Amino acid sequence: MDEVRVIEIKKSVFEDNDRDAAALRKELKDKGVFLLNLMSAPGSGKTTTLIGTLQRIKDKVRTAVMEADIDSDVDAVKILKATGVPTIQLHTGGMCHLDAEMTRQGLDNVALSDVDLVILENVGNLVCPAEFDTGAVRNAMILSVPEGDDKPLKYPLMFSVCDLVLVNKVDVMPYFDFDLDKCRKYVRMRNPKARVIPICAKTGEGVDEFADWLLAEVKNWKLS
Amino acid sequence: MDEVRVIEIKKSVFEDNDRDAAALRKELKDKGVFLLNLMSAPGSGKTTTLIGTLQRIKDKVRTAVMEADIDSDVDAVKILKATGVPTIQLHTGGMCHLDAEMTRQGLDNVALSDVDLVILENVGNLVCPAEFDTGAVRNAMILSVPEGDDKPLKYPLMFSVCDLVLVNKVDVMPYFDFDLDKCRKYVRMRNPKARVIPICAKTGEGVDEFADWLLAEVKNWKLS
Repeated sequence: MDEVRVIEIKKSVFEDNDRDAAALRKELKDKGVFLLNLMSAPGSGKTTTLIGTLQRIKDKVRTAVMEADIDSDVDAVKILKATGVPTIQLHTGGMCHLDAEMTRQGLDNVALSDVDLVILENVGNLVCPAEFDTGAVRNAMILSVPEGDDKPLKYPLMFSVCDLVLVNKVDVMPYFDFDLDKCRKYVRMRNPKARVIPICAKTGEGVDEFADWLLAEVKNWKLS
Repeated sequence: MDEVRVIEIKKSVFEDNDRDAAALRKELKDKGVFLLNLMSAPGSGKTTTLIGTLQRIKDKVRTAVMEADIDSDVDAVKILKATGVPTIQLHTGGMCHLDAEMTRQGLDNVALSDVDLVILENVGNLVCPAEFDTGAVRNAMILSVPEGDDKPLKYPLMFSVCDLVLVNKVDVMPYFDFDLDKCRKYVRMRNPKARVIPICAKTGEGVDEFADWLLAEVKNWKLS
């Protein structure tokens, strides 16, 4: 695969997204495939984080990427070029999130028997994606330092549904008024179980820790 | 007014938002009130930009602010404290955008006969707010440097509907891979008429230009 495929996703016709998401999760379990749903605001560094992570895990776990965007395929092309990991582009046709049925439409284009892990890069948006269970086993999000440490106060649901919060761009912390302790406290307010990992996708700082977390989660899922 | 009021906004029951937005715009015209809809992704610096702008215009035009968020009133409190400009907090109850009817619910809590300009700080989101005409006379958005110069490629509608794009946090441009010429080109692709003003809300760079644009727009609206 050396060209990025673009899949036009249709709006879901299923009304009961939670039921559909649970069914999808069960199907993925039966097939031994772990789905990670990666969310964030626009420009938080999802794609760069993903590239660094894929470079660390691609020889350890068979991985595919679904890159969701309203338009364009710049990110999918970038990921495929930098990592060689099979990547497809999902176009949401203006939709601000993916639900379980839309995720399934994407997965229909992935050779699931050849992969252990699918990473879904959701639409850049801190609001709507949090409202729809995609069928993923784990939800992770990226909060970047320039966005501010107060985001868990303003986007409560997003932080409530995430198992992991990556705090990205820690290299520019000196130039922004971002208090990591305060941020951890706000994340805990929304979700006491969420793990917080500070990273810098550009320099690679912390990305090993994220990669190790992901590999352990995939292993546990397959054994559970 | 020294305390921030919090208004819980109900989901709109109007089906035809465009019609309702046009009606609201006409009502505002009759009352001589200019409504600016300010949009952006989370953490782009809307509130800091707004504070700097209000400090520059508040003695020249009677202004009120409506601050929309899913939750919390941190921004409204900050704006009121820093500027003394009457500010109300709109809570969207999880909704990812404001439509015309929701905007009207907010305006019902503003003393419109005492103001010439109302600035609506929309929910931090580059997707959904672009889909709903709020009834504003002008739409402006902030794209901050850390988000990347490619955002007009990925969020086409937002850039299409905006009359003005503020490129904020230009002070950190040396630390990010952001090409202003490329950004201007991408904005023009989406909207040839959009004006682009580079600013740094923190240092005040460019904020005079934004304030002047806004004052001229308000004046033109009242004379038109």
